[in-house]
Amino acid sequence: MKETTVEQLAAFVDGFVEGDGNVLISGIANIEDAQTGDVTFAENSKLLDNAARSGASAVIAPQTASQLDISVQKPLIRVKNPRFAFAQVLRIFAPEPKIFKGIHPSAVIGSDAILGENVSIHANAVVGDNVSIGANSVIYPFTYIGDNVVLGNNCVIYPNVVLHDNTAIGNSVVIHSGSVLGTDGFGYMFIDDRHYKIPQIGRVIVEDDVEIGANVTIDKARTGSTTIGRGTKIDNLVHIGHNCTVGENCVIVAQVGVSGSVNIGRGVILAGQVGIKDHVTIGDGVIVGAKSGVIGDLPSGVFVSGRYARPHQGEMRKIVEVERLPEQRRRIKALEKRLAQIEKSLGELE
Amino acid sequence: MKETTVEQLAAFVDGFVEGDGNVLISGIANIEDAQTGDVTFAENSKLLDNAARSGASAVIAPQTASQLDISVQKPLIRVKNPRFAFAQVLRIFAPEPKIFKGIHPSAVIGSDAILGENVSIHANAVVGDNVSIGANSVIYPFTYIGDNVVLGNNCVIYPNVVLHDNTAIGNSVVIHSGSVLGTDGFGYMFIDDRHYKIPQIGRVIVEDDVEIGANVTIDKARTGSTTIGRGTKIDNLVHIGHNCTVGENCVIVAQVGVSGSVNIGRGVILAGQVGIKDHVTIGDGVIVGAKSGVIGDLPSGVFVSGRYARPHQGEMRKIVEVERLPEQRRRIKALEKRLAQIEKSLGELE
Amino acid sequence: MKETTVEQLAAFVDGFVEGDGNVLISGIANIEDAQTGDVTFAENSKLLDNAARSGASAVIAPQTASQLDISVQKPLIRVKNPRFAFAQVLRIFAPEPKIFKGIHPSAVIGSDAILGENVSIHANAVVGDNVSIGANSVIYPFTYIGDNVVLGNNCVIYPNVVLHDNTAIGNSVVIHSGSVLGTDGFGYMFIDDRHYKIPQIGRVIVEDDVEIGANVTIDKARTGSTTIGRGTKIDNLVHIGHNCTVGENCVIVAQVGVSGSVNIGRGVILAGQVGIKDHVTIGDGVIVGAKSGVIGDLPSGVFVSGRYARPHQGEMRKIVEVERLPEQRRRIKALEKRLAQIEKSLGELE
Repeated sequence: MKETTVEQLAAFVDGFVEGDGNVLISGIANIEDAQTGDVTFAENSKLLDNAARSGASAVIAPQTASQLDISVQKPLIRVKNPRFAFAQVLRIFAPEPKIFKGIHPSAVIGSDAILGENVSIHANAVVGDNVSIGANSVIYPFTYIGDNVVLGNNCVIYPNVVLHDNTAIGNSVVIHSGSVLGTDGFGYMFIDDRHYKIPQIGRVIVEDDVEIGANVTIDKARTGSTTIGRGTKIDNLVHIGHNCTVGENCVIVAQVGVSGSVNIGRGVILAGQVGIKDHVTIGDGVIVGAKSGVIGDLPSGVFVSGRYARPHQGEMRKIVEVERLPEQRRRIKALEKRLAQIEKSLGELE
Repeated sequence: MKETTVEQLAAFVDGFVEGDGNVLISGIANIEDAQTGDVTFAENSKLLDNAARSGASAVIAPQTASQLDISVQKPLIRVKNPRFAFAQVLRIFAPEPKIFKGIHPSAVIGSDAILGENVSIHANAVVGDNVSIGANSVIYPFTYIGDNVVLGNNCVIYPNVVLHDNTAIGNSVVIHSGSVLGTDGFGYMFIDDRHYKIPQIGRVIVEDDVEIGANVTIDKARTGSTTIGRGTKIDNLVHIGHNCTVGENCVIVAQVGVSGSVNIGRGVILAGQVGIKDHVTIGDGVIVGAKSGVIGDLPSGVFVSGRYARPHQGEMRKIVEVERLPEQRRRIKALEKRLAQIEKSLGELE
Repeated sequence: MKETTVEQLAAFVDGFVEGDGNVLISGIANIEDAQTGDVTFAENSKLLDNAARSGASAVIAPQTASQLDISVQKPLIRVKNPRFAFAQVLRIFAPEPKIFKGIHPSAVIGSDAILGENVSIHANAVVGDNVSIGANSVIYPFTYIGDNVVLGNNCVIYPNVVLHDNTAIGNSVVIHSGSVLGTDGFGYMFIDDRHYKIPQIGRVIVEDDVEIGANVTIDKARTGSTTIGRGTKIDNLVHIGHNCTVGENCVIVAQVGVSGSVNIGRGVILAGQVGIKDHVTIGDGVIVGAKSGVIGDLPSGVFVSGRYARPHQGEMRKIVEVERLPEQRRRIKALEKRLAQIEKSLGELE
């Protein structure tokens, strides 16, 4: 167990201590879980007192925070961005995972492999022919790496991952357990009462710094490549269809489904369970709300939501409108009644 | 093949025989599939005659059932709860799966493992260091168990399951093939044009009697734990985000997605393809209808549905309201016409 | 690298060459990716000029196409169905995947296996007892085949697939990585404050020419079988519940969820992320739009969509109606104002 002081932590995160800088810190936890010896964080001033009343021994807080504002006195580490500082401190306390070094004797490795320095290939992994694996990359058990796969430096490929033939992975890519890259795209032609398979002869390219969650599926292209751009982060159980291009620094949340030949720009956020129709183009910086369906192109910068994704604000208004329908019905009924009354009166007048 | 009599079955399920108790039963099937020698069941009186007209040789029936009500004579076994009795009888006819006993020579087991009596570790399984596996538990092939994992007694871990470091599993837990417990939570901070990963140093805790379907993903907590409560049942392809707490005896149907830091009470039912927003709290006994999206806290006992989950009855009314919109439009048009007519008459009157 | 001429390709796809039939072709690509030496295709006359302006050296085109209509001259191969011809040509250029032949020494094979001619069982695969695998079938690494599984001829089972005990697979079936067939159905009975598991003793049957994507889950039946009909194609991350029957030649797109005991006819198309309620019957040729929920039976031939799947055209109208709600509200308000005015006038008149 590492142990440090509040003062040392503050120096590490470029923060300012208010209170006792000698307090010992041996762990890190969120507000709910914090115990003596932990540091926690208050993302904003609203959460400050909650953090102070937690079991933690110190609090990472916004620059505007003050011990005057808290009901339980604790040392504060004031920083520009408490969440980021917390993430930095997490790295200090993160247990270094004990990683098997070298090539386990039970691993099966094909011909002509090029392995960088310090590569780890765990028990029972299977690596095909003509595979290149960069320095410091780690291949966990039961991972299948097909022929002609290229893997960069500093990658972590967790257990049960499948990288089909010809997949190309950049540097510092993390792929979590059970994900499959390079499956055949879902393409058939229905002729003479049966579905003919369209051969899929392309591949998957994953650029640097991408992280892919567990049990994700990314199909290879029919021809050419399905590409995941640099720095993009993909959550669990996501499906990316064949011939898609995902730009840099996108965030694709769990259970999103992207059909074939979709073109996604840079910095796009697809919230959970979103579905994208095939051949759609999505501009840079687009945000698609959870569970939405995108059935047409979206220009850069829009925030859309709903089953047939439209501008989010309008969608919210529509929901309110639908809520008001019973009231509208009553108003129409009242109008009909009053009008009939008038028509009756007028008839009598004539 | 086991063979028994209607009389013996009735004794086993605490039922009462009407008809020939000596009929031989050698199998069990639902109404559609039943053949001679099978017992089937009628859950209620409506299904009774269907069951009687099936190929089965006997019918498990409600206590109110009578041979007078059926068009094809078969022995009836009358019980309090036919579905439960059927489940009990299924156990009789369930083929005992032949399970490999002992540690297969191809399994790779780390240091300091503590293995209970009668543990089975199948071919090619990989078990890390400091792992404890309780008595009678079965680990199928290609399962990866990380360091410091604790597994209780009588567990069944099917092939290709991944239990990442520090996962804690209770007694009598079943995890189906391809599921991944303890993946990193999906947490990043976007700073200076890139997504920084927030280290995830917590773990997953699964309590006793939980069953987890195939290809499920459960992320470990950032700090602390993601917890699945005792007796909860999770279907295939479900995603549970980091730092979630799922209460006891919940039922989470296939393809549900639960975002991070969600707090789910006891006895909650989430129907298929439901999505839950992060940091939401769901009270005890809540039912969420299929495909619904939950974006805010829900008090105990409510039944909600819809894209922005609201009380189910209101949602159903809204659907009817939307169906009536064309009619409403016609009524408004008629009102406008009549009003114009009156305005015209009044103009002439003046 | 194979090399052929435009003339030879035309003969192969039963097409007619307009332009230079001696041009050499060494690859194939879609319009966006095509380079010198590639053949591409224009599915219809609208795409013809795009194809002509691509980097390709020749274009597969509809029979009505003419070099007179294109702005960049390229040889055309005119065919009845350009997409089908393209698929045929893809087969020519598809690299023959190098497949390990024979039984790898690290594979673990149970007793009484019946292996057809030319079967391949890759490294680290595990095959149970009494398994039969037909001629030319290929079992990739980390695939687990349970006891009593029957697999036909010419099947390809990719890595990490799990076929639980008693599963029956026909001929020419392809199952992609990480899919699980024969998991227990999700069936419990809640009695005395806990969920009792209903034993699931049936199996999964997959007929000839079926293709199943990656990380799919298909549950075995409680009794009897869950059946996938001949020629049906299933995309990635699909869930099929226990006791379902899927007819022939269906297309089930990614992330669809089918609950238990659903009966699906022939030639049904379920678009992405559709959900089907349990015990529903879907007629032949039904099309269900993406993200729809099916909660009741559907007759043959209908095209439905929406959360509570209704005829698609009506659903589209409803969307328009909801869009018009603000306008309707304004019209009602105007009516109320005009009516109040009239009522006032009439009051004065009286």
